[in-house]
Amino acid sequence: MDILEILDKKRTNQKLTKEEINYFVDGYVKGSIADYQASAMTMAICINGLKDEETIYLTDAMIRSGDIMDLSKIKGIKVDKHSTGGVSDTTSIALVPLLACEGLKVAKMSGRGLGHTGGTLDKLEVFTGIKLEQPQDKIIDIVNQVGCVILSQTANLVPADKKLYALRDVTSTVQSIPLIASSVMSKKIASNNDVIVLDIKVGEGAFMKTLEDARHLASLCITIGKAYNKKVSAVITDMNTPLGKSVGCELETNDAINLLKGQKSNLSDIVFVLFKQILKLANINCDYQAEFDRLIQSGEGLQKLKEMVVALNGSTDFFDKELKPAYVYRAKNDGYIYDIKPKELGILVNNLGGGRKNIQDTIDLSVGIRLIKQKGDKVTKGEIIAELYSIQEKDLNNTYKELDNIILLSDTKPTLAPLILDIIE
Amino acid sequence: MDILEILDKKRTNQKLTKEEINYFVDGYVKGSIADYQASAMTMAICINGLKDEETIYLTDAMIRSGDIMDLSKIKGIKVDKHSTGGVSDTTSIALVPLLACEGLKVAKMSGRGLGHTGGTLDKLEVFTGIKLEQPQDKIIDIVNQVGCVILSQTANLVPADKKLYALRDVTSTVQSIPLIASSVMSKKIASNNDVIVLDIKVGEGAFMKTLEDARHLASLCITIGKAYNKKVSAVITDMNTPLGKSVGCELETNDAINLLKGQKSNLSDIVFVLFKQILKLANINCDYQAEFDRLIQSGEGLQKLKEMVVALNGSTDFFDKELKPAYVYRAKNDGYIYDIKPKELGILVNNLGGGRKNIQDTIDLSVGIRLIKQKGDKVTKGEIIAELYSIQEKDLNNTYKELDNIILLSDTKPTLAPLILDIIE
Repeated sequence: MDILEILDKKRTNQKLTKEEINYFVDGYVKGSIADYQASAMTMAICINGLKDEETIYLTDAMIRSGDIMDLSKIKGIKVDKHSTGGVSDTTSIALVPLLACEGLKVAKMSGRGLGHTGGTLDKLEVFTGIKLEQPQDKIIDIVNQVGCVILSQTANLVPADKKLYALRDVTSTVQSIPLIASSVMSKKIASNNDVIVLDIKVGEGAFMKTLEDARHLASLCITIGKAYNKKVSAVITDMNTPLGKSVGCELETNDAINLLKGQKSNLSDIVFVLFKQILKLANINCDYQAEFDRLIQSGEGLQKLKEMVVALNGSTDFFDKELKPAYVYRAKNDGYIYDIKPKELGILVNNLGGGRKNIQDTIDLSVGIRLIKQKGDKVTKGEIIAELYSIQEKDLNNTYKELDNIILLSDTKPTLAPLILDIIE
Repeated sequence: MDILEILDKKRTNQKLTKEEINYFVDGYVKGSIADYQASAMTMAICINGLKDEETIYLTDAMIRSGDIMDLSKIKGIKVDKHSTGGVSDTTSIALVPLLACEGLKVAKMSGRGLGHTGGTLDKLEVFTGIKLEQPQDKIIDIVNQVGCVILSQTANLVPADKKLYALRDVTSTVQSIPLIASSVMSKKIASNNDVIVLDIKVGEGAFMKTLEDARHLASLCITIGKAYNKKVSAVITDMNTPLGKSVGCELETNDAINLLKGQKSNLSDIVFVLFKQILKLANINCDYQAEFDRLIQSGEGLQKLKEMVVALNGSTDFFDKELKPAYVYRAKNDGYIYDIKPKELGILVNNLGGGRKNIQDTIDLSVGIRLIKQKGDKVTKGEIIAELYSIQEKDLNNTYKELDNIILLSDTKPTLAPLILDIIE
């Protein structure tokens, strides 16, 4: 077998065999296939696509490039949720304890924030002392005792995806539904859960720009999951406006805590839908809404989050911390909030120190912006639209200027898209 | 401007601007654009193509990546011929002196052989002592005095093509009509001739597999030439069988000499067509066939080749050298020569030491195979089909075995394709 023949086939839109795809993935991980050959391949895949069968072969080759989590010592149904990456998306921190309250087991591997999207691990570090890397035994103990844990990936899961993703990022070959599906699903399958629910974002601030593409990605992920006997479904949600109220680590974790304390918002709507989907796939039948409300009203969900934080050596002080804005951003005119650009808002908070440009950067957890008004809200001149947290005075003028371009006012009320666009099962 | 945006556009099949194409070519030559980004680009171009306008921009950026030959001190019409690479193609050595006899000026830059195709420079080295690298002044002197010269490229012409071609070769992105056209035409235009005639090969042993693709390549090269006020036409010739009788340096140069001595063959047919096309574009009107025959019968063409060899310090001994085969290859049965595979024949001679696998290899000029019978000829058992020159005894058995698979016999006479498939003006 020869990489040139394989490239030749994909260039001319022919179907690759399992052996050819294995040869490509193995060779790239081992270094016998060069970056410039792999990028020619990812570009050919972006343009000519992969058949479902090829995507399953690719996912399989990527899974086998590294370790597979051994969760056999965890008793019960193991569930996971994955979001394709949004702005102000802090669903995991609220959802994971709620699932554990239902007796489901969650050993969730999360990531750090990079660019305009935040990372769950960074948001959890508001709990002073929390240890997000734990040995395998300890992970299993915590899940068996508490029911849930959110952690950094320690095992050598899917190294092929790490190497390929870094390459795709610098060669404009991220935008490919089969490549995205195999990247997402290889990690989820190597994490070895029984039930996987995906939150696929659509819109300006997301990888998927159209509902059609998002549906295609959802179906493909479900097809891959089926090949591994995993129960998979996908919730397709709007990302034309930030999901929650806040961008920034402390603010977003605070939003998740407030949700568990009973605060209703777009965020709680999505957490409920994901909760319901996971329970359905895990064959738990009940009045999902009543059960969800009960876990929140009784404080069980909040208590479970505290238990998880404590199990990971974290302090619970942040649960009672009062956050105060340094400045506020006010409406310049009367009107409606016509648009809030999610990606640009993420980039602004990132630039203010609340996110990372490079993976080695340190984040200022206290920096953030909280939206007091949402898309579609009516405002009068001088009214507070957003609160600015831990922003330095020297950055203030520029921040105001940026916000003028991110939060757009208009005389006419915008049409609001539904938050949940589709559920694919 | 940003390479990721440019890759994004080509990935989604959008037209690139002149500035974007310049940015790509300049960045790649200077090293600010990496190999893995350039190969993603060439793959995207292979699949999505380039509009004619983009191909002209690309050619222009490549030309400007290096020097342009200053031929202003050469008096007269400067003409050039380029072949897309065939097996047993020794047209240049016969054609160039014939053109000089007509008062046309030829300063032809040629290459070395690599893989299954031979190189004119190697074939010229049968003239002992020949110096194929000459300073610019000397080149101009020879062309003004003799009328023609064939030389190695010394100036820094089109470095972008060198770098891109090497990358395309290892990423399966050679097969693209706009990329081939810009590669060929950038070198021809940087060589600064007035008239360019292309010999585009079609068939098994060639880049262009179909007549349709060859016609497309021809038209595109003519379009590019027009943008530079160059007169360009293309002859499309069959490469499903070796062009001449021989493969190997001494044999091929000997064929060219024999042609100039009056030997008729497929080779002389193609040399005539190229001669006629170049004269037409140079506005020389005459009875082309009569003129061609006159130059050969009078010995003027042969004399001009000798003059050129002498001007380059070469010995003329080879003109009288008698070549003798070491072995012969005979027909195993009665029948017709049904097929002679050109690429495989080239590879065989290469493996026997008559060609190069790597650019630093040395060639044994005397090694070669001469076909005594051609495709379509009737043979009887035991009749000589081919002569083997300078082949070592230890290689003989394997050579015979290889030839059994390269020269196919059959009971039925094959349909012979015309040698000259089309002329595009």
